Amino acid sequence: MSKQWIDETLYEEWKQSFRVDKELAYKQSEFQDIRIIENDFYGRVLLLDGVTQITEKDEFVYQEMLTHVPLFTHGNAKNVLIIGAGDGGVLRRVLQHPEVEKATMVEIDGDVVSLSKEFLPKISDGCWDNPRAQVIIGDGIKYVADAKDGSFDVIIVDSTDPIGVGEVLFTDAFYRDCARILTPQGLIVNQCGVPFMQADELRETSLRRAKFFSYVSAYVAAVPTYVGGFMTLGIAGKGSNRTRQSVDVITERAQKANLLGKTKYWSPEVHTASFCLPPYIQEQLP
Amino acid sequence: MSKQWIDETLYEEWKQSFRVDKELAYKQSEFQDIRIIENDFYGRVLLLDGVTQITEKDEFVYQEMLTHVPLFTHGNAKNVLIIGAGDGGVLRRVLQHPEVEKATMVEIDGDVVSLSKEFLPKISDGCWDNPRAQVIIGDGIKYVADAKDGSFDVIIVDSTDPIGVGEVLFTDAFYRDCARILTPQGLIVNQCGVPFMQADELRETSLRRAKFFSYVSAYVAAVPTYVGGFMTLGIAGKGSNRTRQSVDVITERAQKANLLGKTKYWSPEVHTASFCLPPYIQEQLP
Repeated sequence: MSKQWIDETLYEEWKQSFRVDKELAYKQSEFQDIRIIENDFYGRVLLLDGVTQITEKDEFVYQEMLTHVPLFTHGNAKNVLIIGAGDGGVLRRVLQHPEVEKATMVEIDGDVVSLSKEFLPKISDGCWDNPRAQVIIGDGIKYVADAKDGSFDVIIVDSTDPIGVGEVLFTDAFYRDCARILTPQGLIVNQCGVPFMQADELRETSLRRAKFFSYVSAYVAAVPTYVGGFMTLGIAGKGSNRTRQSVDVITERAQKANLLGKTKYWSPEVHTASFCLPPYIQEQLP
Repeated sequence: MSKQWIDETLYEEWKQSFRVDKELAYKQSEFQDIRIIENDFYGRVLLLDGVTQITEKDEFVYQEMLTHVPLFTHGNAKNVLIIGAGDGGVLRRVLQHPEVEKATMVEIDGDVVSLSKEFLPKISDGCWDNPRAQVIIGDGIKYVADAKDGSFDVIIVDSTDPIGVGEVLFTDAFYRDCARILTPQGLIVNQCGVPFMQADELRETSLRRAKFFSYVSAYVAAVPTYVGGFMTLGIAGKGSNRTRQSVDVITERAQKANLLGKTKYWSPEVHTASFCLPPYIQEQLP
């Protein structure tokens, strides 16, 4: 019998397809369509509303860059807030940093968390039971609106694209609250799409954040399944701009955290290189 | 009427597909299956034996990195040899360097050149008629075997993957001849695939070249339609290793060539950053 394929539906003129070597889970949750399949090359693949979110084989690229870059850029983050990231891959990496005292994760869709716990344990790698982790199933928008001023050093927003349930995570109201609940040297990171395919996403997000933060920048990561060349990760912060640090400073921090040589995409050199933006991406920044 | 799609056949478990908004050309040449289609997002797309080679929209990434990095790394290349690259995009960029006195291009498939001239003029941008260009329709292997010792400063190999007609461009015999016909400080660049998808290609090519060159290295480019994260471009040379130069040196050379601010992916910062390899790629090098 010939195998089934699953087509991603993100773009009109181009698509990627995974061969479905095994169907693992399908659920229409309160918020979205959740599907987990297995593919002989990519391992298990999570799709939300038909869009690839994460695969076992390439998750290290996105997760390492979304986590280690802001934490090593900050240098001493004790309280970290994660919005979204229901698969647990970001939480796992945040907890690898010994200076983090508490990681609070707010994911709106409890079904993503429970299906990830059941079918994607390799991605979360036991992080759910860490005593420094607090996982809240709830609305990230409401959470940041209610949180106290200056309560977080770093906020990591691991959202879907600004369509569907993730759209509210790209608004003025959300960024205003994020700025308020960050400490004076706090910073926020969020995915800003693949500029080659989604030209406006980085520009619009950056302009929006420039209203509430003292600096706005971006760095890049080549994520195999987020197709279209570099994806951009937007970084913005309060206080002085700490985004361009030397390889030596980052190496020292990584050594202290005992993470040198333990990552597959991130390294101190890749960290600093990732802020060198190709001109076609640089021109999207304010 | 619903549109046709064309599926790339490079991998078994995953595929990309372009919507065919217009069929432009199809020819079974002496060497391969040549197809050119038009897609509303990517513009014109060239496929050889079912594998995407170049699109009008993203060609700048691959071509700029395959050309400007070796030429600015060398610093004073007067004679450049291009193997393959029948679409003309590399030749066009080589000729943007004023110190280049002669660019010799050897493409085995005359039909790729003639179809590119007819259907992809935006990619070659008039380079065919440049008096400093010599275009030879012939066998690259034979050309390098017959060429005199020390006749080229830089060799750029723009091959397909090491399958089909391009396979011979990944052999000992070919690299031995390339080393022989390079000047004492000469260097060679060739595409080494996408390590995430084609793990062995960079490793095998690098090991092979290490036999004939005094240094072997690689740099990366995030090419939208060469899917799977970074593609690697292998660089190897005779004499002293010039691959890790400062941004200042590269900037000065780009200024002299009047190319500063005129590229879309390459920049002096991106040039130097592209040699910072993620650990999962670094480990493929000898």
